[in-house]
Amino acid sequence: MNGMKKVFVYDTTLRDGTQCEGVSLSASAKLRLTEKMDIFGIDFIEGGFPGSNPRDMAYFEQVKNLKLKHAKISAFGSTRRAGIRPEDDGQLTLLLEAETPYVTIFGKTWLLHVEKVIKTSAEENLKMIEESIAYLSGKGRKVIYDAEHFFDGWKDNPDYALQTLAAAKRGGAEFVVLCDTNGGTMPSEFVKGVEAAASILGDTPLGLHCHNDCGLGVALSMLGVDCGATMVQGTLNGLGERNGNANLCTIIPNLSLKLGYDLNCAPNIKKLRDLSLFMDEMANLRSDIHQPYVGASSFAHKGGVHADAANKVKRSYEHIDPALVGNKTRVLVSDMSGRASIMMKARELGVDVDSKDPAIKSFLDELKNLEFRGYEYEAADASFELLLSRFLKKNSEHFKVRGYRVIVECDEISKTTKSEATVKLEVDGNIEHTVAETHGPVAALDMALRKALTKRFPQLKNIELTDFKVRIIDSGAGTNAITRVSVETREGNKTWGTVGASDNIIVASWEAIKDAFEFRLAQDDAFFKG
Amino acid sequence: MNGMKKVFVYDTTLRDGTQCEGVSLSASAKLRLTEKMDIFGIDFIEGGFPGSNPRDMAYFEQVKNLKLKHAKISAFGSTRRAGIRPEDDGQLTLLLEAETPYVTIFGKTWLLHVEKVIKTSAEENLKMIEESIAYLSGKGRKVIYDAEHFFDGWKDNPDYALQTLAAAKRGGAEFVVLCDTNGGTMPSEFVKGVEAAASILGDTPLGLHCHNDCGLGVALSMLGVDCGATMVQGTLNGLGERNGNANLCTIIPNLSLKLGYDLNCAPNIKKLRDLSLFMDEMANLRSDIHQPYVGASSFAHKGGVHADAANKVKRSYEHIDPALVGNKTRVLVSDMSGRASIMMKARELGVDVDSKDPAIKSFLDELKNLEFRGYEYEAADASFELLLSRFLKKNSEHFKVRGYRVIVECDEISKTTKSEATVKLEVDGNIEHTVAETHGPVAALDMALRKALTKRFPQLKNIELTDFKVRIIDSGAGTNAITRVSVETREGNKTWGTVGASDNIIVASWEAIKDAFEFRLAQDDAFFKG
Repeated sequence: MNGMKKVFVYDTTLRDGTQCEGVSLSASAKLRLTEKMDIFGIDFIEGGFPGSNPRDMAYFEQVKNLKLKHAKISAFGSTRRAGIRPEDDGQLTLLLEAETPYVTIFGKTWLLHVEKVIKTSAEENLKMIEESIAYLSGKGRKVIYDAEHFFDGWKDNPDYALQTLAAAKRGGAEFVVLCDTNGGTMPSEFVKGVEAAASILGDTPLGLHCHNDCGLGVALSMLGVDCGATMVQGTLNGLGERNGNANLCTIIPNLSLKLGYDLNCAPNIKKLRDLSLFMDEMANLRSDIHQPYVGASSFAHKGGVHADAANKVKRSYEHIDPALVGNKTRVLVSDMSGRASIMMKARELGVDVDSKDPAIKSFLDELKNLEFRGYEYEAADASFELLLSRFLKKNSEHFKVRGYRVIVECDEISKTTKSEATVKLEVDGNIEHTVAETHGPVAALDMALRKALTKRFPQLKNIELTDFKVRIIDSGAGTNAITRVSVETREGNKTWGTVGASDNIIVASWEAIKDAFEFRLAQDDAFFKG
Repeated sequence: MNGMKKVFVYDTTLRDGTQCEGVSLSASAKLRLTEKMDIFGIDFIEGGFPGSNPRDMAYFEQVKNLKLKHAKISAFGSTRRAGIRPEDDGQLTLLLEAETPYVTIFGKTWLLHVEKVIKTSAEENLKMIEESIAYLSGKGRKVIYDAEHFFDGWKDNPDYALQTLAAAKRGGAEFVVLCDTNGGTMPSEFVKGVEAAASILGDTPLGLHCHNDCGLGVALSMLGVDCGATMVQGTLNGLGERNGNANLCTIIPNLSLKLGYDLNCAPNIKKLRDLSLFMDEMANLRSDIHQPYVGASSFAHKGGVHADAANKVKRSYEHIDPALVGNKTRVLVSDMSGRASIMMKARELGVDVDSKDPAIKSFLDELKNLEFRGYEYEAADASFELLLSRFLKKNSEHFKVRGYRVIVECDEISKTTKSEATVKLEVDGNIEHTVAETHGPVAALDMALRKALTKRFPQLKNIELTDFKVRIIDSGAGTNAITRVSVETREGNKTWGTVGASDNIIVASWEAIKDAFEFRLAQDDAFFKG
């Protein structure tokens, strides 16, 4: 423990995070994230770059209406242009118009950039830093100064780099932030750079802004805090340009749970996984299951040795109690698993199984066969549970499929497209033969299946297919390859995963949807009530 | 630079990497990876755990036939069981039967595990370590000793933890490896642990085996090397249980390119991206575009400021020359891009565009409209290029689509499934109306389209659809959501990406396939020859 030093968490997901390949956030998604981060206890939220696009200006207009309980919003921009007064700089004016309590501006530390990119003199750059900060401060803003390329500049010309920090201090910056903009700095030189900056800055608080280009974003942030920094900038899930920014979802538990630093968000760390999943949802990204602490794999055990030991000595292979970050232990079902793992999985699912039941052996054989054919159950607990229960004869099917057909037709002359699905089922001895038409074939199948079932099972009305993934198993086989479809279905707060596999994407989709419906019906049976 | 100390790279992808959720490797994939890693210059390859499954034994049987030029294969197992002689331990016998030059065995460091998991005495555990190593050494094996849970054991009982290392040294271990098995160790305690171990081990070389549970796998490995370790264990792409092992694809360039350590693989680091992609292919995983150094995003620029500066000062925002690791600079096309980015992208594609051409404005408008409707061009250069060329009127379509239809029929009684696709095109003024039948609808469309085109364009015979991804854009809309399909097509060494988007998965697939064919035809036109 480090005497509970206070460390401030500064989030730049809404600005630097959107530089990430494949990420864009609407103004409304940014507002929802702002509220979520405020409730979580993030100290500073960098909302955007008003000078760069109209979407960010819309965000600042609307964020004023949110009733935030703790977080301070900051608008991001740069120092004034060379050769003009701050009050004549349109970009600084936009920063003021954002009407945020904090403003973060970046300036040049590296002479290469001063001379070649903004094409001005070393002296003028120092004035740009000092005057821009002083101007914004004079207008009632608290200013955070981001020293862009600090470590590269400091390696190139240590004296000049430190002069830029001194200029920021003279201008009245509340925090001076050392940016490893390229993400290329190694731990030993990073520590030396932070120490040099700290010696110049005296009582001006120091911040860090690290990137992950060398896989060190989290580590450098932590080393910097050990050297005296009291602000860490980063992003949710480490989103950001190139290889991303320092990942706050890792830094927060490292600093708080592991090292005992005093973080405002400490009481809410048990909601960290929620926050991480919410971020992915807002950016429409698939969650990284391997992300430290919050990923679905973080406390998942597959190897026989580990799975067995985890059972014997709680947390032998878990560095923290998963509940501390809102996560949980999982046992993975895979072709490396033996009977013991299957038994543990069954217990995790609340299914009562006798390990001597001979059905377990035939179940294992069938599981291996299905995995060979492309099915994968790690993300499809519901399909796994249905399969297991079928072998244990603990439930009966609620309907029997006779057949189905989909016709997709596209006329490029009249520009019309439609899909028609027909489904034929046997329910309680009666034939249900239904048809539905809509744009997409999977939606049409879903509709026709609902039509066939909801009369008898009205509880299916509330379930909703929420995610749909497709993966070609053996890409060498081209369009004839086996396709695996994973579907996530939701009812209220509960979600479940199902899987289908086939060389026909419609068949694989059908299997996954059918399992999703069957699983919901099985929930009402005693076997599944655990 | 550190006086060019030699550091050995030990790969455990084939063993610890396969503990990763979603990863399994066939024996043949393991053999291909072994050859690839040998050529790359990896020093040690841990092939598997002969005692755990028959697949690993098959690997050791066959790996003897490979003519490796440098890498040493090691078989992985544990110390003998308590209370028996090494020669009576079946698992040690299997290790010998693997007939590898090296054997790696793990033993217990943490008294909690000695007492609760293997249920023996502290004293017997020390004997198990020493005798197992001595026995294997006596049989002509070089032994690497993995001290499991070293850091947890050392925090719990430093004296006993160091005694286990001393036992390994007495037994004759070639390397003693400190394992952060839980991945929960923080940098400062890690450094202290490595220093304590080094002081006990004297001239016995020290290795490190780190996990990524706190996002520190790479950083700890590097700190350990700075403290004197000369072997780093890790996996390709950081695959491994829970949050993965230390990522060799990051550690190798950090140690070699950044810090100047002497690595055997140094001359081949320019093939690092190839190696990483090959790994993903063998495990059938989607490549992580954000992976340091080797990810497709590592040197990708999206933000206006950065993209502009990268153009002005080469590598201003790149910490190394991407070519050093076999990667390259990319400019991303996204709704944050302005005219300048489009111009850069066009130049990157070798397309000659006049920035004053009014068509550029209408192209930008259409691009924004398409992105709003779900298209995404970051991974679909070919579709982007076709769109751009259409606006610049630099090429003409090679065929015109009149319409198409797909029928998928599944009869669960006779257990038959088939898909029939019909395609109607206009080619050179003639109507081509073709039909094809096979299992899957996408394959059927691909076949019917080929039938309609190859008579006139025989060059299409050699292209092959190799990857197919589907993503629901707005998951809140359930089965009616917009689906984006990304297709990768290959001809020889050349691959290209295309995209389609629709609320109908068949329509989206069709668009992506049609673009893939059209792009290939456009290659023969002057405009695309750059």
